[in-house]
Amino acid sequence: MSIALNETHDPALTSWVAAANAPECDFPIQNLPFAVFRRAGTGEDFRAGVAIGDQVFDLGAAAGAGVFANHDAATQAAAAACRHAALNALMALGPVAWSALRLALSRMLRHGAPEHAALERFLVPQSAAEFTLPAHIGDYTDFYTSIHHATAVGRLFRPDEPLLPNYKWVPIGYHGRASSIGVSGQSFPRPQGQTRVPGAAAPSFGPARRLDYELELGLFIGPGNDQGLPIPVAEAERHVFGLCLLNDWSARDLQAWEYQPLGPFLAKNFATTISPWIVTLEALAPYRAAWTRPADDPAPLPYLDAPDLRSAGALDISLEVLLETAAMRAAGQPPARLSVSNFRHSYWTIAQLVAHHTVNGCNLRAGDLLGSGTQSGPQPEEAGSLLELTVGGKQGLTLPNGEQRTFLEDGDAVILRGWCAGEGKPRIGFGICRGEIRQTSLHG
Amino acid sequence: MSIALNETHDPALTSWVAAANAPECDFPIQNLPFAVFRRAGTGEDFRAGVAIGDQVFDLGAAAGAGVFANHDAATQAAAAACRHAALNALMALGPVAWSALRLALSRMLRHGAPEHAALERFLVPQSAAEFTLPAHIGDYTDFYTSIHHATAVGRLFRPDEPLLPNYKWVPIGYHGRASSIGVSGQSFPRPQGQTRVPGAAAPSFGPARRLDYELELGLFIGPGNDQGLPIPVAEAERHVFGLCLLNDWSARDLQAWEYQPLGPFLAKNFATTISPWIVTLEALAPYRAAWTRPADDPAPLPYLDAPDLRSAGALDISLEVLLETAAMRAAGQPPARLSVSNFRHSYWTIAQLVAHHTVNGCNLRAGDLLGSGTQSGPQPEEAGSLLELTVGGKQGLTLPNGEQRTFLEDGDAVILRGWCAGEGKPRIGFGICRGEIRQTSLHG
Repeated sequence: MSIALNETHDPALTSWVAAANAPECDFPIQNLPFAVFRRAGTGEDFRAGVAIGDQVFDLGAAAGAGVFANHDAATQAAAAACRHAALNALMALGPVAWSALRLALSRMLRHGAPEHAALERFLVPQSAAEFTLPAHIGDYTDFYTSIHHATAVGRLFRPDEPLLPNYKWVPIGYHGRASSIGVSGQSFPRPQGQTRVPGAAAPSFGPARRLDYELELGLFIGPGNDQGLPIPVAEAERHVFGLCLLNDWSARDLQAWEYQPLGPFLAKNFATTISPWIVTLEALAPYRAAWTRPADDPAPLPYLDAPDLRSAGALDISLEVLLETAAMRAAGQPPARLSVSNFRHSYWTIAQLVAHHTVNGCNLRAGDLLGSGTQSGPQPEEAGSLLELTVGGKQGLTLPNGEQRTFLEDGDAVILRGWCAGEGKPRIGFGICRGEIRQTSLHG
Repeated sequence: MSIALNETHDPALTSWVAAANAPECDFPIQNLPFAVFRRAGTGEDFRAGVAIGDQVFDLGAAAGAGVFANHDAATQAAAAACRHAALNALMALGPVAWSALRLALSRMLRHGAPEHAALERFLVPQSAAEFTLPAHIGDYTDFYTSIHHATAVGRLFRPDEPLLPNYKWVPIGYHGRASSIGVSGQSFPRPQGQTRVPGAAAPSFGPARRLDYELELGLFIGPGNDQGLPIPVAEAERHVFGLCLLNDWSARDLQAWEYQPLGPFLAKNFATTISPWIVTLEALAPYRAAWTRPADDPAPLPYLDAPDLRSAGALDISLEVLLETAAMRAAGQPPARLSVSNFRHSYWTIAQLVAHHTVNGCNLRAGDLLGSGTQSGPQPEEAGSLLELTVGGKQGLTLPNGEQRTFLEDGDAVILRGWCAGEGKPRIGFGICRGEIRQTSLHG
């Protein structure tokens, strides 16, 4: 597990980029998340950047200008990979290179760095940047790691058996759609499809009426493995580049009718939205947490067990869902908070997901995306979807402006946020993941 | 539907490549399937080729040498796309370009063509060629279109409800794994994972004991669609480049334990094997067949219905599974036939699969792969998997050399074949799709 702290984690560090030192900033110098961006409206090539305060440090331009020329080979290789329009090459390099680049950036961007004056020209205001997907995503897998979500949803789909017998043994996952993944800012028309009213003889066709979000984290794969060569759980985190926010939009009425026996398909594959920023696993090291299970639950099978799993396998990441309706936008009102949860409640750790995914010989490639599944906490108000918050649409929510919601309406935007904080630790954040249901309809 | 015949389908045509005119040849001049290849052992760049008899016509080299310089713009564009190491660019061009190139190739390769002497140098013997995946596969979706397979497998997994209520309404599908798809010749170690003996309190971990194949066709997507813009069923075939053979290897014991509630995952994603050759939809035009359903079954919903669906929606493609055990190889014995089936039994047509996949706004991209699902015919001996042929492993098969099989053993190779034939029609074939379970074990 990547639990060792080093000078890049020092809470006392500040940056010469002033906004990075504000107490509520998502991007202090201890964070340094990666994205792929360009200056908006320029038609420039996309390249990698790292967030610092309210700026993007243009890694692609800095590497091209020779800023890293006097650094060690690992840093130079990592910086050179940042000139591409996707982070796959950087992800493939592995943790030694990632860590070398992080250290170099921390030293360059901290207060008093001798390079300060020479580096100012590589800053692009985030407000002037346009983002694209951070990687070419070869495969997208979505897991189901919240036992609270699995139980609450299971109760709605299968009242007689909410939590299936395999749940506490198998990190349940399925393959999702890569083509429809978009970066924060994505909008899409309401999906249409087949639904069936319970008890009806035949299904009907039309727009989904139970459109929902799912609050998730995404995990980008680093080097990956060859087909037939599983990644042992103890080495699994060396294959995780970092984490982002992920909204797994879901049409619950389509899902209920189609999902047997092969799982969700059209209910999920119309869109998935991720945040532009990937927070590296190294940046998350101060927020390691104990991985616990109820005493009566089975111990993980040996291929899912690791020495420091229980002490530090989990990650303490706060997660939040906000809803901005068209009426709120028109009235200039702020979005309404729907729920707050935390990734530390996950029944399975990120190392277990990687080990499980590959144990049969399946190969992961650099840039592959793994979703955590909806991160609902133990309390009902910590639910990560409307399906849970409204108990299957039976209990409507009243928003601060008086609007009612059971499921999402056209024009609704869902905003996910995530952050880590703790006594004596620097607060680091994930930025936002925003997606919107268009008010125009889908064309057949 | 692409049912119009033209001069390229004329059964009287013969080629100046003599082997193409043999009666049992898969690749007569009426076929002209595409692959990506290079001369084995040379380290050359991969490029597109078309099969003719026992040769590959090197399209990449011919295009590079200006062979198509005096052709119309559509043909030139298609030929230029053949210089790449994947067919995605050709697939993206659409049916006008595909058809133009096919006509040009038919005229060049037919007996008496004036170009004959000049084109001999672009022939590479298939026995001297090395193939790779024909396209970069952005997403792989597997369907479940044989009602005979769905019923037989359903009986084993859910004896109380073999065919679920949605089957006759929804073309059931799920997302598969793109990273582990390999071209014919692929080998892989036996997957390992969790299984649970029915009734046992806990699962156990080890090599899969119920390893199986699935006899399928694969369908490569052409131009595709933008997110939010469904492809109407009447236009769907314009988005289908062609078909290949596909073996969806399956570990039945892993599948039974993991598949609820989100579908198959590790039971399928360790390997999928496809044939190198893609037979275009235009080449299949003479083998259009009526699409029929039992009179009591529901009519398709309007978004899945089309004017000439019933007369010509299906395709008459014979399919065959052969098993070659290590003992057969050692003794120089031919592979044993396990079953023969036909794609015309499919409950859903290829146009319906494309229309259904996109009706919710999901975007398909050029080079995406759709699997048909296991093509079991109506008779038990036409089953497309060992699970069905052995009734869940209960009735062993005796092979011609005396060996017994319920499921696959290490060293077994499975060979799929497919072909179209009929009175007064040229026989065209798909070549082979061969995959082998390695005798070495998987390393953790």
